[in-house]
Amino acid sequence: MKFSQQLHEKLQPIWRQNHHHPFVAEMGEGTLDPEKFRFFMVQDYLYLIDYAKLFAIGAVKAKDIETMGRFARLLDSTMNEEMSLHRQYAKKFGISEEELENAKPSPTTLAYTHYMMGVAHNGSIADLVAAVLPCMWSYWEIGKELNQIPGASDHELYGEWIKMYSSDEFGQLAEWCIKLLDDLTAGKSEKELTELEEIFLNTTRFEYMFWDMSYKKEMWPFNE
Amino acid sequence: MKFSQQLHEKLQPIWRQNHHHPFVAEMGEGTLDPEKFRFFMVQDYLYLIDYAKLFAIGAVKAKDIETMGRFARLLDSTMNEEMSLHRQYAKKFGISEEELENAKPSPTTLAYTHYMMGVAHNGSIADLVAAVLPCMWSYWEIGKELNQIPGASDHELYGEWIKMYSSDEFGQLAEWCIKLLDDLTAGKSEKELTELEEIFLNTTRFEYMFWDMSYKKEMWPFNE
Amino acid sequence: MKFSQQLHEKLQPIWRQNHHHPFVAEMGEGTLDPEKFRFFMVQDYLYLIDYAKLFAIGAVKAKDIETMGRFARLLDSTMNEEMSLHRQYAKKFGISEEELENAKPSPTTLAYTHYMMGVAHNGSIADLVAAVLPCMWSYWEIGKELNQIPGASDHELYGEWIKMYSSDEFGQLAEWCIKLLDDLTAGKSEKELTELEEIFLNTTRFEYMFWDMSYKKEMWPFNE
Amino acid sequence: MKFSQQLHEKLQPIWRQNHHHPFVAEMGEGTLDPEKFRFFMVQDYLYLIDYAKLFAIGAVKAKDIETMGRFARLLDSTMNEEMSLHRQYAKKFGISEEELENAKPSPTTLAYTHYMMGVAHNGSIADLVAAVLPCMWSYWEIGKELNQIPGASDHELYGEWIKMYSSDEFGQLAEWCIKLLDDLTAGKSEKELTELEEIFLNTTRFEYMFWDMSYKKEMWPFNE
Repeated sequence: MKFSQQLHEKLQPIWRQNHHHPFVAEMGEGTLDPEKFRFFMVQDYLYLIDYAKLFAIGAVKAKDIETMGRFARLLDSTMNEEMSLHRQYAKKFGISEEELENAKPSPTTLAYTHYMMGVAHNGSIADLVAAVLPCMWSYWEIGKELNQIPGASDHELYGEWIKMYSSDEFGQLAEWCIKLLDDLTAGKSEKELTELEEIFLNTTRFEYMFWDMSYKKEMWPFNE
Repeated sequence: MKFSQQLHEKLQPIWRQNHHHPFVAEMGEGTLDPEKFRFFMVQDYLYLIDYAKLFAIGAVKAKDIETMGRFARLLDSTMNEEMSLHRQYAKKFGISEEELENAKPSPTTLAYTHYMMGVAHNGSIADLVAAVLPCMWSYWEIGKELNQIPGASDHELYGEWIKMYSSDEFGQLAEWCIKLLDDLTAGKSEKELTELEEIFLNTTRFEYMFWDMSYKKEMWPFNE
Repeated sequence: MKFSQQLHEKLQPIWRQNHHHPFVAEMGEGTLDPEKFRFFMVQDYLYLIDYAKLFAIGAVKAKDIETMGRFARLLDSTMNEEMSLHRQYAKKFGISEEELENAKPSPTTLAYTHYMMGVAHNGSIADLVAAVLPCMWSYWEIGKELNQIPGASDHELYGEWIKMYSSDEFGQLAEWCIKLLDDLTAGKSEKELTELEEIFLNTTRFEYMFWDMSYKKEMWPFNE
Repeated sequence: MKFSQQLHEKLQPIWRQNHHHPFVAEMGEGTLDPEKFRFFMVQDYLYLIDYAKLFAIGAVKAKDIETMGRFARLLDSTMNEEMSLHRQYAKKFGISEEELENAKPSPTTLAYTHYMMGVAHNGSIADLVAAVLPCMWSYWEIGKELNQIPGASDHELYGEWIKMYSSDEFGQLAEWCIKLLDDLTAGKSEKELTELEEIFLNTTRFEYMFWDMSYKKEMWPFNE
């Protein structure tokens, strides 16, 4: 069995909790409080900037020019296309570009992005891929699941999100990343695979925390 | 006014909340549930390993050999002296070396250490120092405060902690780090100082979250 | 006077030696031994891969999303457009793609690229820009100078090179990078500027060594 | 056969050229021009600072606390003991501390140190160890070889160098590093081992270039 498949099976219990988080479930039903989604969007925008930095580190650590070129493309499309789509979509929720530029990360956003950043800097390209994959993979799966709910993809507020992450284009990206992990881990020792599983597990957990933080609109736990 | 002093004054409201956190207060009174301290010790041990890695990055990013030599010494004394003190102290709480070696970081521990790691890798030596200082500085201040409570430093369980962090030796370390920040920021532009303040603010907040996590013995927010 | 201008004036003596290196002069006259250019092309191809990695590190270290987006675009166009132009051009000299993929860097290529890599990893975005600028800037100046020699840009072998680096498009890139250095250094202390000058000086020198190595087709100085 | 042994055998042809370089041979015979050794010492001092930074990166990238602690010790002893031995020894050649502090790296010194730095930042702990090992290992072998020449270790100028690098203490360091490479490469795929061999080969070659540069007192190849 491929390494990605092993991970996917082993982490099903957490994975399911991600998919069934109220934030996700209510997005599918169209009942999610728009204020919660608004909070999510702002944090997701900040997340995306650091996520793109991981693609840049991927280009640095890649050991062949094909992988390097792919990360380069991904970084460019994120920065120069996807982020403007996010800014557009945010307007629907009354979030101005200025608000986005001045937004501050929540502790969970900081934790998640910097966890990946630390792993990527200290580790290998395989470590980096293990860190970034859960976000792509679970968004794709969630997108596809929600897309099967009648009417969900036409919802005025959340339909666009569902369409984006259930799209073939996004699926191809996720599949590339899955395949990359499998290619990079072929022939690795048990010890190395265990380390990679730990990373994949941690970002899978951070995915849950990100939904949870958004649902609770959670910033720092004290007054400043 | 020196930059360190500016930060200290400006962040007093959060700083005070750190000092008055129940975990800290109860440690001073000697009433803290030992199970909570036990949780803290294990996470603090994991924290310390990554904190030491920041000293190593400090040695890499230092621009003069004196600072480099100082970080080198600090890294060595942390790894080859302080950690064995921690292992000794942990025994008092029934924590074996094996338990320490196999322990897993809580989300807050991961968040805090990797935030610093990401900042240190992406940034300058000044960024790194701004990230590591709040831990040293606030431990020193807390140590000294608790040390003024009659009998606190003789407490069977927590006295050792209070003695360690109120010691002159630890104070000299904190003072060196404060001075280093001031030296590194002399002549910096407002924009640069604002960025450094943001980093210092974030790790000050993570200090609070670390106490809070320990008090609540908080691991991941779902069953695995 | 802008910092870039200061550097340019101060380093004129070395800069002129770069421009007057026999490799450059003979390329302008059209008399350069094609075997020397062939050697250059292969090494330049390897150089370009690592040069692109510096753009990736630029995207990681950038402090605003505009700069980050620009480095992202540059990385992508280098990897996914410029490199295939290089492969095309190389065919004219009988260099197959296979030869390019299997080529090994000369000591000077390794030295130059890894010097920049080390600086970029250990330093700030300003350090990185100071490291990469001399290549862009001097190629642009050399391109424009050679383009003024009647017939040079129509030369069967070297005309393409001259057209590429004297083009408006390439000039805009060089100008962006010059402006970026000036923006990043505004308000910096003398000490910081001196460190940046040292970096700029070193890569200017490595530019000379790269021409020189190409002219001498210089690999490792001993039999293996 | 252990990986270190494979490398050692395979690279014997280059390794022998290192050992037989006139700089090394004349040091053993005691006939080396002191001006050449003087040049070497200054560059070696600059080299050592960056070499120590590699130990720091080793502590960052280490995956267990024993290896981390060992790199920590090595970094500390280099910065806080060995460098002052170097400063002492340098005085014998009329090199003041001030001269050492203000010295500038030659292109070969920059090339060699930054090659290792780039490899260490982009790669894994195994990559780093493959990069730093040839210096330690070949100095130890050269030290032992020269030590067998009657009177060599008593030579007024070069005896100290020979004693230092033929010592048991230095030998233990080299042996630790050899063993670390073997431990880290156990179970690695052929592809990974080939990449590591490339790194080891490159720093072995840079060792030769460092002797050669010292013998020729080689700075930048043009007037400034």
